[in-house]
Amino acid sequence: MPLSSPQSSDHTPEAAGEGAVRADSIAAVAQRVGVSVATVSRVLNGHANVRDATRARVLAEVEASGYRINELARNLRTAESRLLLTMVPDFGNPFYAEIVRGIDSVARQHGYFMLLCDTGADAGRERSYFDLLRRHRADGAICLDPATVQHALAAESTALPWVACCEYDPAMGVPYVGIDNYRAAHDAVRHLIARGRRRVALINSDEHYGYAQQRRDGWRDALAEAGIAARDAWRVNVNCLDYDAGAQAAAALMQLPATEAPDAIFAVSDTLAVGVLNGLRGVGRRVPHDVAVVGFDDLALAAQIDPPLTTIAQPMRELGETAARLLLRRFAEPRARVPGVLLPHRLVVRASG
Amino acid sequence: MPLSSPQSSDHTPEAAGEGAVRADSIAAVAQRVGVSVATVSRVLNGHANVRDATRARVLAEVEASGYRINELARNLRTAESRLLLTMVPDFGNPFYAEIVRGIDSVARQHGYFMLLCDTGADAGRERSYFDLLRRHRADGAICLDPATVQHALAAESTALPWVACCEYDPAMGVPYVGIDNYRAAHDAVRHLIARGRRRVALINSDEHYGYAQQRRDGWRDALAEAGIAARDAWRVNVNCLDYDAGAQAAAALMQLPATEAPDAIFAVSDTLAVGVLNGLRGVGRRVPHDVAVVGFDDLALAAQIDPPLTTIAQPMRELGETAARLLLRRFAEPRARVPGVLLPHRLVVRASG
Repeated sequence: MPLSSPQSSDHTPEAAGEGAVRADSIAAVAQRVGVSVATVSRVLNGHANVRDATRARVLAEVEASGYRINELARNLRTAESRLLLTMVPDFGNPFYAEIVRGIDSVARQHGYFMLLCDTGADAGRERSYFDLLRRHRADGAICLDPATVQHALAAESTALPWVACCEYDPAMGVPYVGIDNYRAAHDAVRHLIARGRRRVALINSDEHYGYAQQRRDGWRDALAEAGIAARDAWRVNVNCLDYDAGAQAAAALMQLPATEAPDAIFAVSDTLAVGVLNGLRGVGRRVPHDVAVVGFDDLALAAQIDPPLTTIAQPMRELGETAARLLLRRFAEPRARVPGVLLPHRLVVRASG
Repeated sequence: MPLSSPQSSDHTPEAAGEGAVRADSIAAVAQRVGVSVATVSRVLNGHANVRDATRARVLAEVEASGYRINELARNLRTAESRLLLTMVPDFGNPFYAEIVRGIDSVARQHGYFMLLCDTGADAGRERSYFDLLRRHRADGAICLDPATVQHALAAESTALPWVACCEYDPAMGVPYVGIDNYRAAHDAVRHLIARGRRRVALINSDEHYGYAQQRRDGWRDALAEAGIAARDAWRVNVNCLDYDAGAQAAAALMQLPATEAPDAIFAVSDTLAVGVLNGLRGVGRRVPHDVAVVGFDDLALAAQIDPPLTTIAQPMRELGETAARLLLRRFAEPRARVPGVLLPHRLVVRASG
């Protein structure tokens, strides 16, 4: 593997002093923890068949001794490229940055490089990146692209080592991690209704995304359960999640006749919701007095703006970490059935709605 | 190269109908433009020795015919990996996303993949990524890491095909693109002084970044030229550029005695400046009435928040595109001296200061 590391290998005389820790070997870790070399190797490679307590002790020892995991990983001579790819539909959405950080930290812990690819949610570009897997130029991939794009690839690629993150379809037979998008949207809309709102608009993503379909259903059903029929005019789909798309959608919604105009807007990303606040300001609507606003994701930005944004928090870092661990498990046990994982979301109530 | 493309190659019968364009060849492009195949190949590989007008015609023809550049590039059989790496210190700052988009678009136009690496501004991690170059697992790299990190590598790596972007040191002998950070900071502070502000604080990045040193000097000199001595208490250095760092720094500045407390804050990134607005709100200061705020970068967010942010615009996308072109030139002419390029910045005046 290509990670750089000190040139000295185990137990040279130079390594005995200050450099001893750095030039130490898997064998020394194994000895100190009281396990076999194979066990340490299994932990570093992310195999599942190690008890949690043992794994924790090995990792603690590795950390305590100040090792460079790189150095250890180099000793595990394999044919692997030690590269993981993460495919996102849009670098520009800060939502992905936090997820990618989670992936990166677990990857690095296990001696892998993570490289990020922007597919623009385009099936052709995504296929190109999958070719890197096929040619063994990368060991595995984590895909955050729309479910429709994943479907286009699944037929030819389920056997490749990849994992779906945030976007997933259990029927695809690919390991995945995400949240319950239906339930999360339902929670957001129920919260708005509990605050007395009746005309709740939805600013949604392109429905190529499975999450967009699930959140739409959650929105519609939460309204229905309160005896409110979701109107078509309240539902806006946008092609991208940037601020301006949110601002424009909000301004357009406010053009509806007064009896129909929304008294609340649920936007499926915080970037959209920040734009919504700006769009409402532009047409003289006060938030939350005239229109309540709820976002989705809980980006760092959500707490900074005025008014601070009520939103659905996704455990972004944990989503990334879990995706990376699922992928490592898939490497370790290619034939095992790796389950789908749903992580909890959380409604964060701030001043906007 | 590993980019996927239709299985049909040139001029199969199937390609004659609807598929003709897609399955077309470099030869057909050359014929239509009236240049040699070698010229088309030089354009697609980013060689410099093609006249601008010819280059433009070739690229227009390629675009007009709806080619997949991948298909063309595949025909240029080389030993290249067709991978470019872009190293950024922090995925999380949206400033990098727009630059990376610029790099990505030029790379794709020329049949390269771009992969993004987060180095955390860490020299060890950066060295690992440079190893991918050394082992020819990637063809070239664009580095946005701090100048100090670049320096640590320059001695061993000037011969490798890489380019510095935003952060640069002309003395390093590595091609670079950036802006005049000294002049940009000077412009920002002069603007604040022209609006009657006298006590202009600076919230600056870690001075491992060359840009942070240059902007500090611009701030100090602009104050000096107005007869104002920059006080140490007005200068805050933060370790990261996230919103919260800006909010905390602003709140701390407002603890100064009333006669010393800043009436303006210049923050070296828009992310910091958005945090500054929040921090000032938290301690009851009105912007710009009590404290004027100027940011840096002109992120999309700057125009969305309340009050909209006065800032220094960097040509982010063009910075990325130029970096990619410099790298392609370096591939084409490894021995040529590639110049450093400075692009213009621009003061964008909005309501915050």
